[in-house]
Amino acid sequence: MTAVIDFKDWMAQVQAQMEEALAHYLPASTHIPERLHDAMRYSVLDGGKRVRPLLVFAAGQVVDADPQRLQAVGAALEMIHAYSLVHDDMPAMDNDVLRRGKPTVHVAFGEATALLAGDALQTAAFDVLSASTLADQPSDQLKMVNILARASGSLGMCGGQGIDLYSVGQSLSLPELERMHILKTGALIRAAVLLGSYCGTSLSDEQRSGLDHYAKCIGLAFQVVDDILDCEADSVTLGKTAGKDAANNKPTYVALLGMKGAKEKAEELKQAAFAALAPFGEKAQLLHALAGYIVDRKY
Amino acid sequence: MTAVIDFKDWMAQVQAQMEEALAHYLPASTHIPERLHDAMRYSVLDGGKRVRPLLVFAAGQVVDADPQRLQAVGAALEMIHAYSLVHDDMPAMDNDVLRRGKPTVHVAFGEATALLAGDALQTAAFDVLSASTLADQPSDQLKMVNILARASGSLGMCGGQGIDLYSVGQSLSLPELERMHILKTGALIRAAVLLGSYCGTSLSDEQRSGLDHYAKCIGLAFQVVDDILDCEADSVTLGKTAGKDAANNKPTYVALLGMKGAKEKAEELKQAAFAALAPFGEKAQLLHALAGYIVDRKY
Repeated sequence: MTAVIDFKDWMAQVQAQMEEALAHYLPASTHIPERLHDAMRYSVLDGGKRVRPLLVFAAGQVVDADPQRLQAVGAALEMIHAYSLVHDDMPAMDNDVLRRGKPTVHVAFGEATALLAGDALQTAAFDVLSASTLADQPSDQLKMVNILARASGSLGMCGGQGIDLYSVGQSLSLPELERMHILKTGALIRAAVLLGSYCGTSLSDEQRSGLDHYAKCIGLAFQVVDDILDCEADSVTLGKTAGKDAANNKPTYVALLGMKGAKEKAEELKQAAFAALAPFGEKAQLLHALAGYIVDRKY
Repeated sequence: MTAVIDFKDWMAQVQAQMEEALAHYLPASTHIPERLHDAMRYSVLDGGKRVRPLLVFAAGQVVDADPQRLQAVGAALEMIHAYSLVHDDMPAMDNDVLRRGKPTVHVAFGEATALLAGDALQTAAFDVLSASTLADQPSDQLKMVNILARASGSLGMCGGQGIDLYSVGQSLSLPELERMHILKTGALIRAAVLLGSYCGTSLSDEQRSGLDHYAKCIGLAFQVVDDILDCEADSVTLGKTAGKDAANNKPTYVALLGMKGAKEKAEELKQAAFAALAPFGEKAQLLHALAGYIVDRKY
């Protein structure tokens, strides 16, 4: 049933669908308070690679999921991701002024609005995830809500940001660095794959754990590649301030492993991700291509 | 089946149960990052009147709900409430240094941790609301998640905070002021009553809408009384900075209606709340007493 799909076409198609879905799920700018809704839309729309929604759609292929469901799930994840960026960019945190080639939200709208917009984006994610039917069983959809909450809370993404914050200027060991990134970036990437896999036919526990292993590998690979790009690329290509981690004395894979070691690590993780997909055959075609894309991207 | 209960005893009992429940549901301070978990616990534990959990328990009486379920729902609401206070107190918003008689979270832990702690408290609320069985039907529990999200997002509580923020120094009309408070305080109070009513036997739509009307009245009454107390009480009694709204030139019911008019309005709302409870008879005993408590409180 699964036809061969051109990966780049598919990616562009999902990105376009997600832009529409996000524009639909975010409250209109005409709603009061307009400034808050403007800021929410500004931070989410027209930007980003939509890596998490791409993972949702790719995992959805494994279970023949309804694209409508995948759009909603992708929108929820993208809202969580966007909220974390808005707050992370604020002066109290990274104090960054450039994101996706545009002024950050607090620069464009002020700190108070950035704070509220991040808050409301997080809530909007849980709204979208609970508003319409996204899994065949309501009990599975409740599980999806819980997976997203665990992945993004203080024992997930937000906890990872805390560890990152408290480790500035400190030298972390490799296991400590990995723990930070498994939480900060990896948790939401794992959630994307898992949530997508709940939107269609059911999987065995063994199958689900295979997908989870894939997700863990690419979550970590994603961060290793981010560190590599932060060293090698310039701000214009990245659309955000380059070299900032080194300047902030933040621990990176490149600092710990060297550039060659970091690149080897990314390649190893990609191969491990491929191996985890083997039992799914053709149905994992998109997940496979996505792992390649994540590791081999240039920005 | 419903015995006559001494209201003050009941209130103290629920407050004690909620303290325990919150201590249980919040991640332990020993979890990494410890500082983040310390801040989360600091902001939630050992403080507050627990008005929203009290409403959950009182609504639970109407449907003979399991207290375990009510504790979880009460904890979720209290986490949302606490997150909104932590962020509202930050320098970019109200810049307040005193809350519940203690230094605010950003004063005690720094701004970055306050930002993350508020974020993670919001997530924790959705975690608790989706982690264990809280309604007989999973589809009802999904509805509960959605009710909480709608009530606390940009078209609810967070939107109300936005309107409040953008209205500083402006003169609002009474309808505008009411819209702000219906969102800022009222939405979460309504959610508390509704969520409690989903935890037990089912209600008809008419019954549910009666409870909702009660909740709307006391939500607004709560804010009117807050304005009155902000004018009349001192900081020590309130446990927060008194007279701050007037000093900030924020619109209040007292400013718009005068002290006498504001007190009449609170009394009218209380009577309307009582009337909405009439069809429930003895089962609404606690909701009835709670409306009286909310309007007649001194802090």
